Amino acid sequence: MTKRDLLSAADLTREDLENILELAERTKGKRSSQILAGKTLGLLFFDRSLRTRVSFEVAAVQLGGHCINIFADREMYDLEPDDQAVMDGLAEESVKDAARTLSRYVDALGIRQLRRTGSWEEDRREVLLHAYAKHATVPVVNLESTMEHPCQAIADVMTMRERLLRLQGRRITLAWTNNPLPKNIGPCHSLLQMAALSGMEVTLAHPLGYELDADVVQSATTHAERAGGNVRVVNSLEDGLRGAEVVYTRSWGSTKYWDDPERETMVKRSLQSWLIDETAMQTTQNALFMHPLPVRRGVGVTDAVLDGDRSVIYEQAENRVHAQKALLTHLLG
Amino acid sequence: MTKRDLLSAADLTREDLENILELAERTKGKRSSQILAGKTLGLLFFDRSLRTRVSFEVAAVQLGGHCINIFADREMYDLEPDDQAVMDGLAEESVKDAARTLSRYVDALGIRQLRRTGSWEEDRREVLLHAYAKHATVPVVNLESTMEHPCQAIADVMTMRERLLRLQGRRITLAWTNNPLPKNIGPCHSLLQMAALSGMEVTLAHPLGYELDADVVQSATTHAERAGGNVRVVNSLEDGLRGAEVVYTRSWGSTKYWDDPERETMVKRSLQSWLIDETAMQTTQNALFMHPLPVRRGVGVTDAVLDGDRSVIYEQAENRVHAQKALLTHLLG
Amino acid sequence: MTKRDLLSAADLTREDLENILELAERTKGKRSSQILAGKTLGLLFFDRSLRTRVSFEVAAVQLGGHCINIFADREMYDLEPDDQAVMDGLAEESVKDAARTLSRYVDALGIRQLRRTGSWEEDRREVLLHAYAKHATVPVVNLESTMEHPCQAIADVMTMRERLLRLQGRRITLAWTNNPLPKNIGPCHSLLQMAALSGMEVTLAHPLGYELDADVVQSATTHAERAGGNVRVVNSLEDGLRGAEVVYTRSWGSTKYWDDPERETMVKRSLQSWLIDETAMQTTQNALFMHPLPVRRGVGVTDAVLDGDRSVIYEQAENRVHAQKALLTHLLG
Repeated sequence: MTKRDLLSAADLTREDLENILELAERTKGKRSSQILAGKTLGLLFFDRSLRTRVSFEVAAVQLGGHCINIFADREMYDLEPDDQAVMDGLAEESVKDAARTLSRYVDALGIRQLRRTGSWEEDRREVLLHAYAKHATVPVVNLESTMEHPCQAIADVMTMRERLLRLQGRRITLAWTNNPLPKNIGPCHSLLQMAALSGMEVTLAHPLGYELDADVVQSATTHAERAGGNVRVVNSLEDGLRGAEVVYTRSWGSTKYWDDPERETMVKRSLQSWLIDETAMQTTQNALFMHPLPVRRGVGVTDAVLDGDRSVIYEQAENRVHAQKALLTHLLG
Repeated sequence: MTKRDLLSAADLTREDLENILELAERTKGKRSSQILAGKTLGLLFFDRSLRTRVSFEVAAVQLGGHCINIFADREMYDLEPDDQAVMDGLAEESVKDAARTLSRYVDALGIRQLRRTGSWEEDRREVLLHAYAKHATVPVVNLESTMEHPCQAIADVMTMRERLLRLQGRRITLAWTNNPLPKNIGPCHSLLQMAALSGMEVTLAHPLGYELDADVVQSATTHAERAGGNVRVVNSLEDGLRGAEVVYTRSWGSTKYWDDPERETMVKRSLQSWLIDETAMQTTQNALFMHPLPVRRGVGVTDAVLDGDRSVIYEQAENRVHAQKALLTHLLG
Repeated sequence: MTKRDLLSAADLTREDLENILELAERTKGKRSSQILAGKTLGLLFFDRSLRTRVSFEVAAVQLGGHCINIFADREMYDLEPDDQAVMDGLAEESVKDAARTLSRYVDALGIRQLRRTGSWEEDRREVLLHAYAKHATVPVVNLESTMEHPCQAIADVMTMRERLLRLQGRRITLAWTNNPLPKNIGPCHSLLQMAALSGMEVTLAHPLGYELDADVVQSATTHAERAGGNVRVVNSLEDGLRGAEVVYTRSWGSTKYWDDPERETMVKRSLQSWLIDETAMQTTQNALFMHPLPVRRGVGVTDAVLDGDRSVIYEQAENRVHAQKALLTHLLG
């Protein structure tokens, strides 16, 4: 049997996603089968985490399993992702050997790494994640990378289905908001792909310079059309929100200014109107409000929206556990 | 059902304390019921810990549960405790959202944070701990804060009951000792309140400038008198020890010099006689010797006292596990 | 019953080693008995770890137990190993009190500490490890120290037995290789002793200045001769490899230049020929290739050797789990 990784939303077919969501919905809040009894997951964190780390460990525990969390920068040494390197630099071990070794110990690996070297072309390649996936003989799960956060997106789609039932043809707007510090674009890429796979009508609303990755948008457009939906881009928040049934927001960093954060800070000064408040929400079709968290309250989104009765932000957070239990069952069960 | 927190000794009634202690005594050393099977505790450490962290995790494991330890300063990002803040500073998430999210994942939260901003009035408010308690929908347990360490105090009272059986009317002296680095006052505040609740005759022996918090002393005095005991303060170690049946010692930092550590260092030079040795212990009524640890051996207390046959320091440490198992049963069972 | 520690390979008799290996071989890959159910291991890491940490936790989980990992430098405070010290320095607690306290909580302790103070005579005494072993009342296991790594060596011997069946009289060469950064000598000391205990014919091949510890070599020689083997030293890699049935390699730091790393760097410039490649391996008797990892690929050993069909490096890594399950059963079962 080939091992199944989940590095990108693109690793799931429409049928895979459907199966995972149905299992998550069926087992939510139910006593779990102990399918991970005696099994261990090795989770490598190169970046900070609250939701992902805790929700994964809770998911594993509820299935009878055990997580070994490794805070890689402090608890391990530098690893060399390149197979061909002569290792006379800082790295004391190759990803190849670490991945092969860990595969003898644990039943699946999870990896979080958000790179910011200054070169978007370099960072979007996600060299470390793909080196682990290449050499590990157990499934590798992306716990958020530069490009993707598929575990978040599965929970997001699950949350929409709970409220809207059928997603095909429903209008979701993925809206950029302003924020002093750029956040990772990964959750948006994954959500876009899974919404497309679900046949939703997706509007991407962002200023010029904040385009999502062109390959991801292209692939999502293809999938959306195949599933009866579509993807369009607008550069006005007002146009984006009008008539939306779901508003999903996140303040992501520009890949265009990836190597020039100071210029991005300047650009953002003229983008103060990219803010979701109650007035903005009134132009939607009584839309659900979604955000993957963390969120800076009062910055980009007002408290009234975050705490309003159309907000499902804590349901999204909670569904991480249920979605991940279903995912682990899909990968390892 | 309202959730029960344990932020302060004051959160326990006399009956609560009695129930917890009876359960701890009854189940000490016995095979544990698995009341936490499939349950998880999220423990947030903003400060270092040995006893609390390990004893809590062992308690949870013996009850079938699982602890997720989060070393907050390194593994999470800054959190904003103020509900009303516009979050354009360092904090990337509000305590509100973190507490609400974690409450969807874990069955209880524990928090250790010892603040030292330089303002005692600010630090004694324990803003972060109270923000978590306000927003979490699961029980929050204080794992040691600026003001309190109730889990230590329950274990301390348990240890006294094992040796003295009935505590009402027994004479305990809580004695300050000298130490190059100030330690947290919290364990003293919690022990004072629980000794008072148990009807003990409590003597606080400390130099001028080392007063316990006035509100805590006031409340403890009321509780002690109601329970048949009393609280008195002396500023002489000799007076404090005379006739004591229990000597409980700890070198706490002065809240008076909270904003001026250099002045405290000067003041302490004249307090070298605040030391517990065998000669000092001979003036007591063959008193038990107690210390919550860690202790600097030879500094404040001699090895002969710490290792003497009236010392119960390791029993106190061990009883952390049994007391916390009973506490978790009380809160979650 | 006296507690059993495993601080050094010398703590195991030939019969102990035989029993542990037989148990490991018998239970490898089998469903584990839950002999650690409800039990906890406290693992103190003063240095980074991948294999040891993960393989120990997996071993414990498979036996139904639970590891509490403590990253000592960040999560605890300084501890004083000397019983007699007056603790007016940095240390806030004695090893005595920490070890006694932890012994009330956990069923065994593991400790990793690699010291490099600049004095080999000081560091080889392993003061902290021995202070824990002295004061703990539960078994203490060495998770790699300045002098030893017995858990690695048990897995190494297990791996050789799987391939060679009977070890008595088999020729193993323990060969130094060149490496920009010196690695710990401990795995070599432990492997030497266990190979000797198994009656192997051991060749130590290293340049002048890279001698193993004289006491360890002396003791291993005695044990080897008693068990029908022997120990010899050569200062030529070519001589060392000729006719070997097992090549075990590691680039260890010189204890002679322990206080003068710059001089060692100079010395190593003339030792570039200490490299294991396919040509070097052809002079052996089709030897197994072993390495305890981590390894710098292309430095000291070529990829062709590491990935060749005589390499058992991942079997060594995997056997850590099986050997440690047997060890834990031996110590605690």
